[in-house]
Amino acid sequence: MKRVKMIVAYDGTNYSGWQIQPNGVTIEQKLNEALSALLGESIKVTGASRTDAGVHSLGNVCIFDTETRMPAEKISYAVNQRLPEDIVVQDSCEVPMDFHPRFSKSRKTYEYRILNRKFRMPTRRLDTYFYHYDLDVEKMKAAASYLVGEHDFKSFASVKMQSETSIRTIYSCDVDKSGDIITIRVKGNGFLYNMVRIIAGTLIKVGAGDLEPEQMKDILAAEDRSAAGPTAPAHGLTMIGLEYEKSI
Amino acid sequence: MKRVKMIVAYDGTNYSGWQIQPNGVTIEQKLNEALSALLGESIKVTGASRTDAGVHSLGNVCIFDTETRMPAEKISYAVNQRLPEDIVVQDSCEVPMDFHPRFSKSRKTYEYRILNRKFRMPTRRLDTYFYHYDLDVEKMKAAASYLVGEHDFKSFASVKMQSETSIRTIYSCDVDKSGDIITIRVKGNGFLYNMVRIIAGTLIKVGAGDLEPEQMKDILAAEDRSAAGPTAPAHGLTMIGLEYEKSI
Repeated sequence: MKRVKMIVAYDGTNYSGWQIQPNGVTIEQKLNEALSALLGESIKVTGASRTDAGVHSLGNVCIFDTETRMPAEKISYAVNQRLPEDIVVQDSCEVPMDFHPRFSKSRKTYEYRILNRKFRMPTRRLDTYFYHYDLDVEKMKAAASYLVGEHDFKSFASVKMQSETSIRTIYSCDVDKSGDIITIRVKGNGFLYNMVRIIAGTLIKVGAGDLEPEQMKDILAAEDRSAAGPTAPAHGLTMIGLEYEKSI
Repeated sequence: MKRVKMIVAYDGTNYSGWQIQPNGVTIEQKLNEALSALLGESIKVTGASRTDAGVHSLGNVCIFDTETRMPAEKISYAVNQRLPEDIVVQDSCEVPMDFHPRFSKSRKTYEYRILNRKFRMPTRRLDTYFYHYDLDVEKMKAAASYLVGEHDFKSFASVKMQSETSIRTIYSCDVDKSGDIITIRVKGNGFLYNMVRIIAGTLIKVGAGDLEPEQMKDILAAEDRSAAGPTAPAHGLTMIGLEYEKSI
């Protein structure tokens, strides 16, 4: 028996998110099916980030246990032959049997992309959120800086939230514009339910002039979801990757 | 009667190219249907670049004649309501009745995008061509410089070519890498059939080390399609836009 860790990229457009559910096709289900067929045993993956419907990934992590004699490094190439073109395993390697992708300490990075121009751009409609009105990127940068550090992020969590604590550390939250695309890149030790999308929705309100950057302090202090901006749509969000603290 | 010019962006993935044809849905057909329904008369657009199946556009140009009293500037907003999400009109304005998008002198810009990394990236599978082996961007830049100027591009045209002359002027041909994506951006006074895709296929051979940059001179001089590299796949190509010489 060995434990294999995989890095998984996907276009979330056509999936009901990561986690297996009764209605709708999920990433987890597609991976289980492809790995089980490849290895000839019943495989169940465990994911690091259980992304919502429509959310994309460049570097989500999952593990599974297997009896196979196939070298772990070869599994990525082999399983990609059995996966649809919108799910691609980027890497596979063996890890210790006690490694758990969700309970091991890590730094997680997400990107939220906003297409900020007069008209929609069809080729980027899947992985950017189209926003028509001008956004002030400098104000968004200033607002984002208030989020960095250890804070209670209750204002930035959907009510569905189930975590025991809403205190998290954000290491960086950068806003950059390249051409027509504004990217919010946020790195933290963990994120509450919908947290990055609510951060994006709030920064958009700042960029649009509906909130001043300094109001981010008040929003954090309120510890109340209704103080923050709306939850930005799922398809603008991409799970970029996880760095685990203990080298595995 | 007035003549309206529109700038049209599209994701070419689900279309059999621009031009109307008996089998397969085309961009031209979708525009004719949406404009005819909007304006209540039979509209037939004429396009500047009749892009092939799978090729994308950010700035293709078309014109049509209409009896409508709707201001030309408003047509873009109104017709977008009737178009699928993968075709978006970016601008509309009135032009002189003698303006023709294909026969008026213009500078045309195309981009060919190569995703150069170990594994496919699902979110960019529609508008980049995935190439697994390392490409030497400096060599590709050097090779591209030989194409700039007025040349006979017969070696870079598919046999299907029907133009009276194969002499064209390329104003610039730049190769740049940003992250995992190599972009070939080429601007010219006109392009032969498949010319940008053959340029891309040839520059990829240079980047891979199969051809030396200096061999571009010999390929041009051969005036023979078989001297150049393969035709790179359509989905890596995007029509960026046209600048007309006479301001219209």
